[in-house]
Amino acid sequence: MSRLDIFIDRMVSQRACLDWAIAETATMPGPVFELGLGNGRTYHHLREKVAGRQILVFERAVASHPDSTPPDADLILGDVRDTLPATLARLGATASLVHADLGGHNLEKNDAFAQLISPLVEPLLAPGGLMVSSDRMYFDRLEELPLPPGAVPGRCFIYRA
Amino acid sequence: MSRLDIFIDRMVSQRACLDWAIAETATMPGPVFELGLGNGRTYHHLREKVAGRQILVFERAVASHPDSTPPDADLILGDVRDTLPATLARLGATASLVHADLGGHNLEKNDAFAQLISPLVEPLLAPGGLMVSSDRMYFDRLEELPLPPGAVPGRCFIYRA
Repeated sequence: MSRLDIFIDRMVSQRACLDWAIAETATMPGPVFELGLGNGRTYHHLREKVAGRQILVFERAVASHPDSTPPDADLILGDVRDTLPATLARLGATASLVHADLGGHNLEKNDAFAQLISPLVEPLLAPGGLMVSSDRMYFDRLEELPLPPGAVPGRCFIYRA
Repeated sequence: MSRLDIFIDRMVSQRACLDWAIAETATMPGPVFELGLGNGRTYHHLREKVAGRQILVFERAVASHPDSTPPDADLILGDVRDTLPATLARLGATASLVHADLGGHNLEKNDAFAQLISPLVEPLLAPGGLMVSSDRMYFDRLEELPLPPGAVPGRCFIYRA
């Protein structure tokens, strides 16, 4: 497989998992969290598909496409090591859906970041809430779910609180 | 459609067009040109799929993934306004396949770049050679071909010399 093949599988799987998870949590009132904005393509997709829920974006510094930049009120700027615990203190276990695309080239770095954020994400999810991630996470109590049709095993992960 | 949907269509179409064009030109001996290296995912794909042909990469400055960096002998560094005419003088009309992913967010800029490079690319192709492009090109004599299965109209273009 070429890096192009792997990348396409990753993007297609991300969309399949997100679309499934958005539908699965559609009746939950709590916010959706996007960890990392990047270029904003996935945020643009969430904004198009998620109805009636706030989408909060966690990012260190905004560098997104103008079409895909969140309003200031939905942007939580800073290091996730600080902003995730601060958000837990403010909102409690209310998130209906959390998405993270750790997505660097460096697999070891991605894995270290997954280990770092797993205990920070876990308490944010409301009961029944879902986490969709580009990488395997390290949760204590969340359950890993089978992937929906169209997603490629190993290219995306879904966990339920 | 979200920007994620459009992006996935573009990447899937790029791969479908390239795979088709590589097979279609497989018996031609001339080199393959990759205009722009970027992260190197598409070069990695070409390297995996193209057999027995040199792959020359045109780039201003290399910033690719280490797995996807061409050897110095296959790298033509500089501005394509200089390097394409210099390559024509050196190799003549010998290219079997030229690929360009202009791929920025800014459609007007992509179109201006397509207009700029079209007359520089056209004379490089051997008779029967193919050009695969992310954007509509401005050729005088090349023929636009129908897309192969799996490619989405408007997300990729193929031209034959």
